[in-house]
Amino acid sequence: MKMLIKNAKVLTMTGEPIEKQEIGIENDRIAFVGNAPDGYEADVVFEGEGHLAMPGLVNAHTHSSMSLLRNYADDLPFWEWLTEKVWPIEEKMGPDEIYWGTMLSNAEMIKSGITAYADMYFYSAETAKASVEAGLRCSIAQGLIGSSAKDKEKLDVTRQLFQDWHMTGDELITVMAGPHAPYTCDDAFLTKVIELCSELNIPIHTHLSESEKEVKDSLEKHGRSPIQHMHHLGMFNHHTLAAHCVHLLDEDFDILRENKVHVVHNPSSNLKLGNGISPVSRLLSSGVRVSIGTDGSSSNNNLNMFEEIHLTALLAKGSTHDPAVVPAYQALEMATKNGAEALNLGTEIGMIQPGMKADIILVDLEQPHLYPHYQLDASLVYSAQASDVRTVIINGKIVMEKGELKTIDLEKTYHEIRRITKMLVD
Amino acid sequence: MKMLIKNAKVLTMTGEPIEKQEIGIENDRIAFVGNAPDGYEADVVFEGEGHLAMPGLVNAHTHSSMSLLRNYADDLPFWEWLTEKVWPIEEKMGPDEIYWGTMLSNAEMIKSGITAYADMYFYSAETAKASVEAGLRCSIAQGLIGSSAKDKEKLDVTRQLFQDWHMTGDELITVMAGPHAPYTCDDAFLTKVIELCSELNIPIHTHLSESEKEVKDSLEKHGRSPIQHMHHLGMFNHHTLAAHCVHLLDEDFDILRENKVHVVHNPSSNLKLGNGISPVSRLLSSGVRVSIGTDGSSSNNNLNMFEEIHLTALLAKGSTHDPAVVPAYQALEMATKNGAEALNLGTEIGMIQPGMKADIILVDLEQPHLYPHYQLDASLVYSAQASDVRTVIINGKIVMEKGELKTIDLEKTYHEIRRITKMLVD
Repeated sequence: MKMLIKNAKVLTMTGEPIEKQEIGIENDRIAFVGNAPDGYEADVVFEGEGHLAMPGLVNAHTHSSMSLLRNYADDLPFWEWLTEKVWPIEEKMGPDEIYWGTMLSNAEMIKSGITAYADMYFYSAETAKASVEAGLRCSIAQGLIGSSAKDKEKLDVTRQLFQDWHMTGDELITVMAGPHAPYTCDDAFLTKVIELCSELNIPIHTHLSESEKEVKDSLEKHGRSPIQHMHHLGMFNHHTLAAHCVHLLDEDFDILRENKVHVVHNPSSNLKLGNGISPVSRLLSSGVRVSIGTDGSSSNNNLNMFEEIHLTALLAKGSTHDPAVVPAYQALEMATKNGAEALNLGTEIGMIQPGMKADIILVDLEQPHLYPHYQLDASLVYSAQASDVRTVIINGKIVMEKGELKTIDLEKTYHEIRRITKMLVD
Repeated sequence: MKMLIKNAKVLTMTGEPIEKQEIGIENDRIAFVGNAPDGYEADVVFEGEGHLAMPGLVNAHTHSSMSLLRNYADDLPFWEWLTEKVWPIEEKMGPDEIYWGTMLSNAEMIKSGITAYADMYFYSAETAKASVEAGLRCSIAQGLIGSSAKDKEKLDVTRQLFQDWHMTGDELITVMAGPHAPYTCDDAFLTKVIELCSELNIPIHTHLSESEKEVKDSLEKHGRSPIQHMHHLGMFNHHTLAAHCVHLLDEDFDILRENKVHVVHNPSSNLKLGNGISPVSRLLSSGVRVSIGTDGSSSNNNLNMFEEIHLTALLAKGSTHDPAVVPAYQALEMATKNGAEALNLGTEIGMIQPGMKADIILVDLEQPHLYPHYQLDASLVYSAQASDVRTVIINGKIVMEKGELKTIDLEKTYHEIRRITKMLVD
């Protein structure tokens, strides 16, 4: 199967300037960027005039099935929201709910140009199943909350997930271990999780230093920040994707850099839950790897990476009082290359380059809010909307063309969501 | 001319819950909300199934023609941006540039559900002309920068604007005086502007306390904050629309409340230029009237009120560490009712109520990012995109139907913008 994208302006994210180039795709990989060889015959030709082609966005931290809780409970104090609203509904969710919640989120993510995501929730096999059907690249992690006494069964779920799903679905699915957070897992359990990562050679997806309270409690209990404590337990000997990192001690910056921890910035969620603003500019200038995530739809309340990229650049400037920090291109790197690295897929996705997987989106530039066309990287960060994404290719397959989803039955999904949410809130 | 909107869920912004109702429009005004009288025959019937009808959004502070500078110069220190990038290009702009810059922005604003806006720039007659052609409600203010010595001619422009344009275009256009800021107008000039407002009985549109430096300089020069100083000069005896108000002294809150000053919050611009975050939650709880604006497209870089509403709610929570402040409905009030009041049109627009002008938008709820449908006010604030707006009615006229602009030739506008921007940056 050969595809050719013609006449689009191409943002490769390899550091090269944006210019009109042709992109050739053969099966699941990018064959060339530049000019097609003489006489090249493609099975499918995309006319890209008026569009910008760029690597698909990587949503490096979400809980996709939480879309079932979107706009159900907002504007509440954190603990009231979590214990009185979220938890009682989550208790009613089984595999069927997780499958359809994921499918709804997959539709939203594809429509907004996300081609890969890192998920942490429960019944993760259902998330994998829905993602393979939708054709969306996903790194699944079963969220683990536990203490040493009852840990074995929980670890077995991750072991089973790994055996059943890792590198399946044309390699769309990878598996991580998902210890929820230092305050929901005791040290003995975390040590078991870290041992499991050694056994399976898989990365870790966790939440760290999200709230001020978490850091204060950790300092009181351990004499160490959550990041210092995870370092102490040996977590960072493994590839770690650490969501949030809002409240940091000076020492935390060094630990994160030296251990190549992948921090995932979730600006909307951190604001909406009242946790504050992560010091992203300082993290980046300290040499820490930072990518971007949406978090779940009950604390955001959408999975719109264009909003998160926009917020990442703006919040960094507003909070440091320096309009020059986190320029547009750097914000885009966080949402593509850095996200790919966070998912442990840095050699496979995140750039448009021969040999890499063909995860490519086409953005329609013929929109009033994108005129005039001066600096297109700035257009993408400061002006674009998720709805400007018109065509999405993942793993060399067309999953959306001219705004129309090719792999998901949206009407059926809406029907199932209406059925499920009626049951959940009754 | 009679129009009927059927089967839409209606958010009236009068405090009533959202429910399915019929809306009748006769000529430029809303005739009824509820059930059409028996045998009611409309000339046009809108099928609103799957949509939410709400008052059009009010963009209470912008410089619409700055869209010509969108994404031309970003990520720069403030003074370099302003003096080396913005000002040299603005010097090249004449009436033709302002007309087409406004038309481009009008297209963007209509597409994102804005039905009224307050503008401050130059050649404001062109902004009025383009707005009348586009069918968009606009309050124009010629930006005034001056010292006492050379003020007469500048005041005459506002006087002429008032004579030529106030309450013209089926009352779409109103006129304000636009003293740019305390730091660009001396006291003698400001006093003349205030006298002009008395003479013409028009409101004032200005910038106040945008940057830390502005406040520091004012305290050094006058021993008063910009807000204290404007109060001292008598500005607030007139209806005043004060954009920004980011850096405030304790005393400023009282002055703003007691004098019924309309503060316009511009969250994206304040972040992007590194000015910080306005204390909106404290302003609101102090009883100050606060509305929302986009500012111009060169410091935002779009005119997307959905983004600004979203940011307003999120930044208030994030900066106060309290997820309960500025709940969804309050953020929507700021963008509708409060904006209407800021434009001195509080009895005419901002709510869906019999007797008010018919400025109504229809939002498509059948989008993955808006499912499920629990609390629709939260959906609008936390999940919706500007592109969800499908139909826009202003002054009883359809300016966009199912995403298609009815009053603006978009291809011609793009063509003119390409021509103009080539000239501007050459």
